[in-house]
Amino acid sequence: MNEQVRNASAAASHDVLLDRMAEVAVRVGLGVKPGQEVVMTAPLEAVALARRITEQAYKAGASLVTTLFSDEEATLMRYRHARDESFDAASAWLYEGMATAFKSGAARLAIVGEDPSLLAKEDPEKVSRANRARSKAYQPALNLIAGFDTNWTIVSAATPAWAKAVFPDDPEDVAVAKLWNAIFAASRADVADPIGAWGIHNRSLRARTRMLNAKNYAALHFRGPGTDLRVGLADGHEWAGGSTTAKNGVVCNANIPTEEVFTTPHKDRVDGYVTSTKPLSYQGTLIQDIQVKFEGGRIVEGKARTGEAVLNKVLETDEGARRLGEVALVPYSSPISKSGLLFYNTLFDENASSHIALGQAYSKCLVNGGSMSEEELASRGANKSLIHIDWMIGSDKVDVDGISADGKAEPLMRGGEWVAP
Amino acid sequence: MNEQVRNASAAASHDVLLDRMAEVAVRVGLGVKPGQEVVMTAPLEAVALARRITEQAYKAGASLVTTLFSDEEATLMRYRHARDESFDAASAWLYEGMATAFKSGAARLAIVGEDPSLLAKEDPEKVSRANRARSKAYQPALNLIAGFDTNWTIVSAATPAWAKAVFPDDPEDVAVAKLWNAIFAASRADVADPIGAWGIHNRSLRARTRMLNAKNYAALHFRGPGTDLRVGLADGHEWAGGSTTAKNGVVCNANIPTEEVFTTPHKDRVDGYVTSTKPLSYQGTLIQDIQVKFEGGRIVEGKARTGEAVLNKVLETDEGARRLGEVALVPYSSPISKSGLLFYNTLFDENASSHIALGQAYSKCLVNGGSMSEEELASRGANKSLIHIDWMIGSDKVDVDGISADGKAEPLMRGGEWVAP
Ligand SMILES: [Zn+2]
Ligand SMILES: [Zn+2]
Ligand SMILES: [Zn+2]
Ligand SMILES: [Zn+2]
Repeated sequence: MNEQVRNASAAASHDVLLDRMAEVAVRVGLGVKPGQEVVMTAPLEAVALARRITEQAYKAGASLVTTLFSDEEATLMRYRHARDESFDAASAWLYEGMATAFKSGAARLAIVGEDPSLLAKEDPEKVSRANRARSKAYQPALNLIAGFDTNWTIVSAATPAWAKAVFPDDPEDVAVAKLWNAIFAASRADVADPIGAWGIHNRSLRARTRMLNAKNYAALHFRGPGTDLRVGLADGHEWAGGSTTAKNGVVCNANIPTEEVFTTPHKDRVDGYVTSTKPLSYQGTLIQDIQVKFEGGRIVEGKARTGEAVLNKVLETDEGARRLGEVALVPYSSPISKSGLLFYNTLFDENASSHIALGQAYSKCLVNGGSMSEEELASRGANKSLIHIDWMIGSDKVDVDGISADGKAEPLMRGGEWVAP
Repeated sequence: MNEQVRNASAAASHDVLLDRMAEVAVRVGLGVKPGQEVVMTAPLEAVALARRITEQAYKAGASLVTTLFSDEEATLMRYRHARDESFDAASAWLYEGMATAFKSGAARLAIVGEDPSLLAKEDPEKVSRANRARSKAYQPALNLIAGFDTNWTIVSAATPAWAKAVFPDDPEDVAVAKLWNAIFAASRADVADPIGAWGIHNRSLRARTRMLNAKNYAALHFRGPGTDLRVGLADGHEWAGGSTTAKNGVVCNANIPTEEVFTTPHKDRVDGYVTSTKPLSYQGTLIQDIQVKFEGGRIVEGKARTGEAVLNKVLETDEGARRLGEVALVPYSSPISKSGLLFYNTLFDENASSHIALGQAYSKCLVNGGSMSEEELASRGANKSLIHIDWMIGSDKVDVDGISADGKAEPLMRGGEWVAP
């Protein structure tokens, strides 16, 4: 009976946490406006969270919540049974539909929880072609998201395959429970007042971005084992972090969790070499120990201990895939870093470590970037690409300096921690 | 051990039947072309069949299979928590996207398995408004489907809520197993050669439509308990049944199962009264013992023992909702009728009985209808509406005569069975 009571209490607690997570997703992440439509994407395994979010969204006044579920089994069937031509196809009508929804004012909520190794055994050539076709079809919708034309957020759910990747030695149910707990903690859903906790967190990230914007550095300089990289910042770059006010006036937190402050590098002013400090899980392939060399902003040499073929396919996506679209600073003491877990998921791992992203820049990370033409954005140094892939370059052994326009270096991070308050 | 063996064999058998069902859906229902995209809709509970169909579709050469899952729990959350304005909203972007897909050549596969009583306790006013908004948003896509611009099919899956409605006295797992067996049987997936069986069945339906097209009746006359109805047929009407050649040249079976031969009534030439012989399950409400009176094609009086409010809401959808878009003949001895089951699902129950449909006509049930303008279609008597709702008027007590242009009556069905071969 004691056991039953404990189980009932544990179940209630998971339910409460799931509800809080849904509230964080809707009220902090999305900030859904009364009367606003919501377009949600979710893996089939995340249906429990999707339902809680649906309920919270209606309670917050959403007009209509539509969920597009994805099925990893169906993805595998494509790789196993589809004809070769299939891998150049994408459901353009669906991505166009999503772009139409965002243009009509819909908010966008993504639940992620992919199996990080789903496509590890598939032909990298096919994986790359399928991703390319999908990225191309998705670009109009992604542009609206990247430009914050509407409010959006990404949250995560513990799925069995992902949980087994993070906790390989535990039985599936234990692994799933542990991953949920890590997600609740990182998403600040495990505290009594998640909304209040997010308010405090957003204010502290805002203080950091104000300081960096006031400094208006010309470049950042990363130094550590296998890394000596100067990342020039875009002219008129702007640091962002925490909540964003989208163009529709809604305040949203685009990533739950988020610990980073980030800005736009100059696509032609990145030089030196850099070594990844955590594995990158990209579309089902683990890319480990990336080592790349930049010259004039462009990656001229790329290696990796595992997944090098996929990395090189990624770099061949388009010209912008070899250049940076984001640089972000995260202290080594961030809660996700302190958990000591490797999540095999960018949403978490990028918030455990300073990072750079290959590909598309965020126009909001330029002063007035939201109202600039493509030409203006490019002239400031903002990169353009079908991809945006973050990978981790920070650790407790990495130092970062801010370099001002006159070449003066100021210590920003030492041993992975902020020097200035 | 004997028990284990029996269980293993029963499990294998269900798997085999599910695979055959998927093969029927893809090869008989859809007739998917190599290189063709497939857009599938399915309830979440039908994921097992959706995956088999995905596999069979890729094996048959589909370029890409995209499944849009629907979640009845999310629908209920809307009724429970959404603001009043929500019920005039529809995800137009998604339905527009589907129309774009069909125009670009995608095939359409629907798995149905709704809980027939899902919305029974909800406000009929809200149900009607939500359906109206959705019907309006869906109309461009539905027009492409109704006009067979592309190949399409509807198949079904046994979901727990539906199974409990059909077999209320059985435990859920028994009910689901029984409903699956009924679905496999009605879909001719329970025979060794389903594709061959469908060939024979399609040829027999074709012979019947040829006979009726040669007769070119001016009207049908239904007589039975509570029924004395003269259904004038559209000028240049054409009988259809079994497989259809879509405008893209693909031969498909739009309904699995299908036992009916059907054509287009004249929207202004229906007179008399008619009583339904089976309950109509409409969007979650059971409408039982419908009694309506027609004058000049228009329903001037509509009653029902249960669901009358929903019936009257349906009739108010638009002007065409009070007129007929289809009349269909099904012998009382059809396999679905012989099962003795009430499925609470039109796909099955309409194939157990002769029926009529309120609302939109199928242009393919007019000679050259596929290439006619809206005006031409209307001048032949084809009805136009946002809705198309079949309800059952046949039984072993209903007789049907064919009335030729000169007013001569010929017996077509007696006691629910075909008179002529
Ligand atoms: Zn980042
Ligand atoms: Zn990023
Ligand atoms: Zn029919
Ligand atoms: Zn019909």
